[in-house]
Amino acid sequence: MSSLTLPSGSKMPIVGFGLWKVNKDTCAETVYNAIKAGYRLFDGAADYGNEQEAGQGVKRAIDEGLVKREDLFITSKIWNSFHGKDVVRKTTELQLKWWGLDYFDLFLIHFPVSLKYVDPAERFPPGWHAADGKTVELADDPLQETWVELEKVVDDGLAKNIGISNCSGSLLLDLYKYARIKPANLQVEIHPYMTQEPLLNLAKALNLTVTAYSSFGPLGWYELDMGKGAQNLLQHDIVTKIATSSNKTPAQVLLRWATQQGMLVVPKSNSKERLIENLKVLEGSDLTSEDMKALSGLNINLRLNNPAEIDPRMSIFA
Amino acid sequence: MSSLTLPSGSKMPIVGFGLWKVNKDTCAETVYNAIKAGYRLFDGAADYGNEQEAGQGVKRAIDEGLVKREDLFITSKIWNSFHGKDVVRKTTELQLKWWGLDYFDLFLIHFPVSLKYVDPAERFPPGWHAADGKTVELADDPLQETWVELEKVVDDGLAKNIGISNCSGSLLLDLYKYARIKPANLQVEIHPYMTQEPLLNLAKALNLTVTAYSSFGPLGWYELDMGKGAQNLLQHDIVTKIATSSNKTPAQVLLRWATQQGMLVVPKSNSKERLIENLKVLEGSDLTSEDMKALSGLNINLRLNNPAEIDPRMSIFA
Repeated sequence: MSSLTLPSGSKMPIVGFGLWKVNKDTCAETVYNAIKAGYRLFDGAADYGNEQEAGQGVKRAIDEGLVKREDLFITSKIWNSFHGKDVVRKTTELQLKWWGLDYFDLFLIHFPVSLKYVDPAERFPPGWHAADGKTVELADDPLQETWVELEKVVDDGLAKNIGISNCSGSLLLDLYKYARIKPANLQVEIHPYMTQEPLLNLAKALNLTVTAYSSFGPLGWYELDMGKGAQNLLQHDIVTKIATSSNKTPAQVLLRWATQQGMLVVPKSNSKERLIENLKVLEGSDLTSEDMKALSGLNINLRLNNPAEIDPRMSIFA
Repeated sequence: MSSLTLPSGSKMPIVGFGLWKVNKDTCAETVYNAIKAGYRLFDGAADYGNEQEAGQGVKRAIDEGLVKREDLFITSKIWNSFHGKDVVRKTTELQLKWWGLDYFDLFLIHFPVSLKYVDPAERFPPGWHAADGKTVELADDPLQETWVELEKVVDDGLAKNIGISNCSGSLLLDLYKYARIKPANLQVEIHPYMTQEPLLNLAKALNLTVTAYSSFGPLGWYELDMGKGAQNLLQHDIVTKIATSSNKTPAQVLLRWATQQGMLVVPKSNSKERLIENLKVLEGSDLTSEDMKALSGLNINLRLNNPAEIDPRMSIFA
């Protein structure tokens, strides 16, 4: 089983390729090569600033007959600046145009944070701050208003499934109460330093699929000058020992820890070898329950992606 | 300064008397004695099952000329079973009738959890479970629908202020987006085993007052067979040492730790001495910053009041 079936019937590959921090100038090539290597899910976002280039990689693979559109599962995310009920639809259309697609397989609310609208023609991706690079300009769009617009996006065939990222229990439960179309996926930060069992228990009770991001923990954050206080998980004794004993690479151990709990993963790699290595994570034997416990035992609730650090008025994880 | 001023202009006493687990048969007397001892804020709730008796204590004190209604600050909370937009108003009126009051000074949503309606004439307080004592019957009332009804309760003078209890950051921020009347108070579990700095930072950014409940940590939960894994905070070495050096009682140390951070507190005591001792917490010298740090250093994120333990579909803190 290399995919999970969503309530809509869509099959979502368990291992995908994450497009965060994939440079514009290499993105088309990277996506094309990843498809060649066997990747079928790409996890993008307006905020990653590379959707046009990712779309070029997809187009090339389709044009060359490597895959058909329906073989791929394309996830994108709507950014905080586009939560207004009058801009959700046109932003979705713009993102689809960039990708060169008629529909997304999954379209997520990137954060349950709404920021002031920024015209994409003026500044894109707008990120967390206003044009001055300092001020955070909040907007007042309740989540329900954004969700209702996303439901219309599904109605009109622009997305097969919708979901939310970076959402905690109480807000997620509230969303379930008014959602005509329930979320098909929750994408959240989960790794052995941040195991989030309570949220996983909730998702299980809701029959909601969970995509774990930042599977390798702080590693991907070092280049942003973040997470430096925490040891590289890939070099952590417990991880490397389990890698040796299970005949996996450290990266595979971390990914397998997630998939064995029923989660989907979206690692990124710039290296062709590691890209293939990550994709093979579902092969081979399970981690033992002792290994799983040892990995989960590393939990220190280390949240690497927390907008409260930018501005306390965005304390969505408090 | 023994009170905080809410945005409505209401003055909310910093130290109040909590009515949770005050027995029906002693409640009227307890409230009357607490007023005599100087308490002006009473923190009640439909769920505590003693509002009628608390109201009798208030009436006696007013009848005897000890206080006037306007000298008191009465908080109550609407229970989970009464979130439906067609029942909020009539439940508020029923609770006011029990208290014998024309208005609440503060009316809180007890939990952002909505349960199936139970007719108070049949079973009250209904608690978390259906009549079988086992099943949890959830309802689908979005928080916004309940909040809009509470705003009408304020419009009509039945509550001077409204707020919410047991609410986390993401849902609180969403509430702020649609709230015509912003919450005046957030009541949450906070004690040195569960310091909740991120939530306090958010409340500060929102200019929202915070009432800390379970100030003494696990003690109040032992009788419910809960929190037994944690040492009694009142007997914790760090607390007793600070008590000695600061010339306060351990209870006063724990309350002062909260009030010195700007929080309000609602301790309960069955003993007349401790009742007075708690009320005097604002007197005397501040705890030193070293003492404050040592107390906060006890944090282990020990949440004693978590409905997810009853049913994962109520994982409001995940």
